Amino acid sequence: MKYKISIVGSTGYTGMELIRILLRHPYVEISSLTSESYSGLRLNKVLPFFNIDIQLEKFVPENIAKKSDLVFLCLPHTESMQPVFKMLKFGKKIIDLSGDFRLKDKTLYEEWYGVKHKYPDLLKESVYGLPEIYRDKIKNARFVTNPGCYPTSVILGAAPALKAKLVDIKDIVINSISGVSGAGRKVVTQYHFSEIHEDIKAYKIGIHQHIPEIEQELSNICGKKIKVSFIPHLVSVNRGILTTLNFKLIKRISTEECLNIYKKFYLNEKFVRILPLNSYPETKYVFGTNLCDISLKVDERLNRLIVISAIDNLVKGASGQAIQNMNLMLNLPEETALEGIGMMP
Amino acid sequence: MKYKISIVGSTGYTGMELIRILLRHPYVEISSLTSESYSGLRLNKVLPFFNIDIQLEKFVPENIAKKSDLVFLCLPHTESMQPVFKMLKFGKKIIDLSGDFRLKDKTLYEEWYGVKHKYPDLLKESVYGLPEIYRDKIKNARFVTNPGCYPTSVILGAAPALKAKLVDIKDIVINSISGVSGAGRKVVTQYHFSEIHEDIKAYKIGIHQHIPEIEQELSNICGKKIKVSFIPHLVSVNRGILTTLNFKLIKRISTEECLNIYKKFYLNEKFVRILPLNSYPETKYVFGTNLCDISLKVDERLNRLIVISAIDNLVKGASGQAIQNMNLMLNLPEETALEGIGMMP
Amino acid sequence: MKYKISIVGSTGYTGMELIRILLRHPYVEISSLTSESYSGLRLNKVLPFFNIDIQLEKFVPENIAKKSDLVFLCLPHTESMQPVFKMLKFGKKIIDLSGDFRLKDKTLYEEWYGVKHKYPDLLKESVYGLPEIYRDKIKNARFVTNPGCYPTSVILGAAPALKAKLVDIKDIVINSISGVSGAGRKVVTQYHFSEIHEDIKAYKIGIHQHIPEIEQELSNICGKKIKVSFIPHLVSVNRGILTTLNFKLIKRISTEECLNIYKKFYLNEKFVRILPLNSYPETKYVFGTNLCDISLKVDERLNRLIVISAIDNLVKGASGQAIQNMNLMLNLPEETALEGIGMMP
Amino acid sequence: MKYKISIVGSTGYTGMELIRILLRHPYVEISSLTSESYSGLRLNKVLPFFNIDIQLEKFVPENIAKKSDLVFLCLPHTESMQPVFKMLKFGKKIIDLSGDFRLKDKTLYEEWYGVKHKYPDLLKESVYGLPEIYRDKIKNARFVTNPGCYPTSVILGAAPALKAKLVDIKDIVINSISGVSGAGRKVVTQYHFSEIHEDIKAYKIGIHQHIPEIEQELSNICGKKIKVSFIPHLVSVNRGILTTLNFKLIKRISTEECLNIYKKFYLNEKFVRILPLNSYPETKYVFGTNLCDISLKVDERLNRLIVISAIDNLVKGASGQAIQNMNLMLNLPEETALEGIGMMP
Repeated sequence: MKYKISIVGSTGYTGMELIRILLRHPYVEISSLTSESYSGLRLNKVLPFFNIDIQLEKFVPENIAKKSDLVFLCLPHTESMQPVFKMLKFGKKIIDLSGDFRLKDKTLYEEWYGVKHKYPDLLKESVYGLPEIYRDKIKNARFVTNPGCYPTSVILGAAPALKAKLVDIKDIVINSISGVSGAGRKVVTQYHFSEIHEDIKAYKIGIHQHIPEIEQELSNICGKKIKVSFIPHLVSVNRGILTTLNFKLIKRISTEECLNIYKKFYLNEKFVRILPLNSYPETKYVFGTNLCDISLKVDERLNRLIVISAIDNLVKGASGQAIQNMNLMLNLPEETALEGIGMMP
Repeated sequence: MKYKISIVGSTGYTGMELIRILLRHPYVEISSLTSESYSGLRLNKVLPFFNIDIQLEKFVPENIAKKSDLVFLCLPHTESMQPVFKMLKFGKKIIDLSGDFRLKDKTLYEEWYGVKHKYPDLLKESVYGLPEIYRDKIKNARFVTNPGCYPTSVILGAAPALKAKLVDIKDIVINSISGVSGAGRKVVTQYHFSEIHEDIKAYKIGIHQHIPEIEQELSNICGKKIKVSFIPHLVSVNRGILTTLNFKLIKRISTEECLNIYKKFYLNEKFVRILPLNSYPETKYVFGTNLCDISLKVDERLNRLIVISAIDNLVKGASGQAIQNMNLMLNLPEETALEGIGMMP
Repeated sequence: MKYKISIVGSTGYTGMELIRILLRHPYVEISSLTSESYSGLRLNKVLPFFNIDIQLEKFVPENIAKKSDLVFLCLPHTESMQPVFKMLKFGKKIIDLSGDFRLKDKTLYEEWYGVKHKYPDLLKESVYGLPEIYRDKIKNARFVTNPGCYPTSVILGAAPALKAKLVDIKDIVINSISGVSGAGRKVVTQYHFSEIHEDIKAYKIGIHQHIPEIEQELSNICGKKIKVSFIPHLVSVNRGILTTLNFKLIKRISTEECLNIYKKFYLNEKFVRILPLNSYPETKYVFGTNLCDISLKVDERLNRLIVISAIDNLVKGASGQAIQNMNLMLNLPEETALEGIGMMP
Repeated sequence: MKYKISIVGSTGYTGMELIRILLRHPYVEISSLTSESYSGLRLNKVLPFFNIDIQLEKFVPENIAKKSDLVFLCLPHTESMQPVFKMLKFGKKIIDLSGDFRLKDKTLYEEWYGVKHKYPDLLKESVYGLPEIYRDKIKNARFVTNPGCYPTSVILGAAPALKAKLVDIKDIVINSISGVSGAGRKVVTQYHFSEIHEDIKAYKIGIHQHIPEIEQELSNICGKKIKVSFIPHLVSVNRGILTTLNFKLIKRISTEECLNIYKKFYLNEKFVRILPLNSYPETKYVFGTNLCDISLKVDERLNRLIVISAIDNLVKGASGQAIQNMNLMLNLPEETALEGIGMMP
């Protein structure tokens, strides 16, 4: 018997990517898909590249709960709070892909997301779904909050250096470059093809809502309060995040030694690859995969450590990681449906 | 009577861009074009988008000198030393677009470019062709070394903050993102369309030859030895460099006050635009122009100053700036042939 | 004294492109810009790549008429009828970039555009603004209807073959491939970057509103009623239309002879280039220019003539051609502000 | 026990795509990979997105034969003749992805490929590997010649109309638009990113080597000699072919009736999808899949039938189809390793 899985908000990009991956998952079946914009229509009409003929429904919590063992919530930020509350009340396992339950500190949420948190009590229960850091907690969780795309690339790139106390935690500068699909499927002038194609820009400088999420998790890792300067950029590609972390080293160490620390940290991880000396990640090499490629270089001239990480923002940065979490929560092999190699070219 | 201009190495991207701009210049005429790969052929056969029927010649210094008032050298790095020497001997004005004469310190050149410098005596004479900083020297120069693309975007973005002593010069982190044309027209696997299209990557980490050039010029500006962490990135667009400078502020200052310092610094500059509060540069907005757009934000949470600059790497980052220098050296109006607005979309 | 020019609907792509070109025009000045979406704001706020500080106004016909010698109308199809009527009543010269007055037969308009024509009497007066075909009429016109982008590339590619009676007019197959900017700036899901990037598709098969426009003009050229099979395609580039015309030859003729017929036909045209034998147009080579590049090949195996034409859909396909028409109507040199060479890369 | 599979020429795009798909195939294992350029190196060094550590060897027929049950040949056109001969002598099953054995008529091969055919006797034995047409022959073949990318999209789009005798076979016009990966991985100026990005062009007009292949197969289908006008185009996307077939109908028929004929023709085909009325294929919808999407429209105004087909040129147009053939030749389920849904966005 297969697990019954529902996706609430299935016609946005993270919902679509969940469907794509779940369709090749041998142990689960899609039992319901909701869509506010397209309810009443069949999936293969709305998104013709999907061959499956499922009716898209309006989101009625009772109905979805009845049909599901686990529910993915792919709603816009600030709209996920009540649905999470309701689905938990019905005793369902939940993976929430919004940012509504990622920040443990409700005042931080209210400050960075600009709305009041309606269910702050649930913040304690939610488990931050980064398996490389919280695998055991996720296995036992009934409510996982799936990490943001930028934080995934940042935290995986920073964790080994922080754990090994190699770097000055007062002086961390992070630059990320993302493809456009990370902005979601909302229809606004700035994402019109002709407005953004052939463009490079920085945006939300100092105010991106992923900053407190990054700071919360990096602080957890090193047991001290950390603040970071994080600058997100947008370029006209479909998928991919490349993150460049720039650390001040607090001791002398060689690139090889650093690489060994990273290799050891991720020794048994199937989805994190530490590249060999003098190789650097490219988003194209993880396109369509759940992989996070990482490499690094010690700049001895400046005694700085540069770490580069690359993910596909819709896979390891969203829906792939969500399914990795689902596999853990359902006690299935962690890589199920996430094997596969990126497409090149 | 028009000035006679020659381009040595005219079928690479900087050579082609020089031709494009010079063709609308009212006070000069192209008197000779050289090309090692295509000598003997007509320009409109080799590059059919050019309507002009000029014979491409092999580079013979005497011949070119005879026909020219001013010569642009668009040769690969390390191949420009002797040609510069020869053309100067013939008494011609020169603008060299290679990196061969940008570093005043010959040992730095030899360390970062990996070859011995053949004419170190000429390093003293060469004037660094960034008009916003060295306008008067350029006006009187007979030999200008044209700045690198990354350094142009970095120096213009950093100069006002450094001059105003706002920032900690021991702790400067710079990220740049460039389109592919910056890598030139060499035919290698890594720039094959299918290898690089839809890709984001960092490269030459800690070893890019523009690092000592940036450090030399920033040091000149603030009168102290500066080292910077500079990380270049490549994305699959044709043109554009976006540079993000991340400074530690050494005093409290508001974004508005900083913007005013920048506006004042560039008050009379035609090619530098300081964007209004909360607007940030996009490479698309300077596409095809000689403009450098700059904006900034003080991140009060961290007391850091983030400066963003955008240029078209082939125009302000190379050939447009070279023509701006030519205009100054020939005592022509500085903007001639460089007016024009970027293409959007 | 400069001519006063207004643009009604100035913040769409054809309006923006008119501004870009007019700003380098020595004999005209922009006297007013209207925008329904952004009226009341300054142009450099709404479109920051423009340096000029003009107030965008609501379109009030009297006000615009007072301030203008000539008005460009850049309104959506079906919305241009009344504005044209009103501006003509005020005695102003008009160039209408919509499709509302291109079809001389009002029933055709109503059939293909799906709305009733409100001012059918004005159809007689309007001059089809393709200077290579109707130069003299345009010079004397007060009301020019600017051709569609696809029709421009088709008619220029077909005219010499039709005039010379080389081809079977009962059997013409035309395929065009366009960049996305041709679809305008409307904000709909299908033009969201992530929906269309890396895509190739055909659309509006058999029902594109440019079909009757193409047929009307080709019929005029050869004096007989012509129907064509025209299939438009969309690909994820910003600008450019490439059109492939496939004719059955009705006599034996060589490629060279055909090329000579084409060269002769366009002998004195500044904006049409017939490429040499075995060279074929690429949209990149006309990017940003008012040029139409044409080449052809006789396929002797099939006795067919294949003609390829390339334009920039926003320049020769819209705003560049509109300014070419303006120059003719104002008795200015036809190429003014339209010189310039495409950008490569 | 798994079948042992070798790939000769494994570091070009079709070789890489074979590896990608074979790695998820449960019934086969890769036993050897050859590469002339990279022999002696490990696969994961040369192509770092592959995780597997296989030594790339020089192609020595005896060695490859010993280690293989079936061999894929991914060599350039004109270089596959002798390797096919040798591997057959060793009694191995072969799938040849080059064009060397697709044309049954040796004089046609010599005319269109410009070289003498060295093993014309083998032309009789080779089976054209289009399963939707030749499934039974492929099942029993030891030597399959894999179809070209354009011919696959053309033949699948044309077959039902030809079989049903709907169209005038003297008057077939075909336009195809391909992404750049179809040109292979050769390093030449014209495929440098900056030369081809943002470009649309037609090429090899009347002389593309896929023309006789298309004509051979369409002639086979309708039992009469057919000639077609086929015009290939290139646009700056990574993957995808969109083909537009333009037929003269020889009787009156509705779009719905035509669709039914197509649906019936492909009733049991897993990899051909006939889209519903008024939906048209997009390459993005088959990206990364072995699918061929087809739709059509009767243009009643002209009594013409327009058929559109879309494939991924590297999957159904090359390596996916090759694996579909392998599955048939090895008596494995035809869809093995080819399930999967395209990536959107």
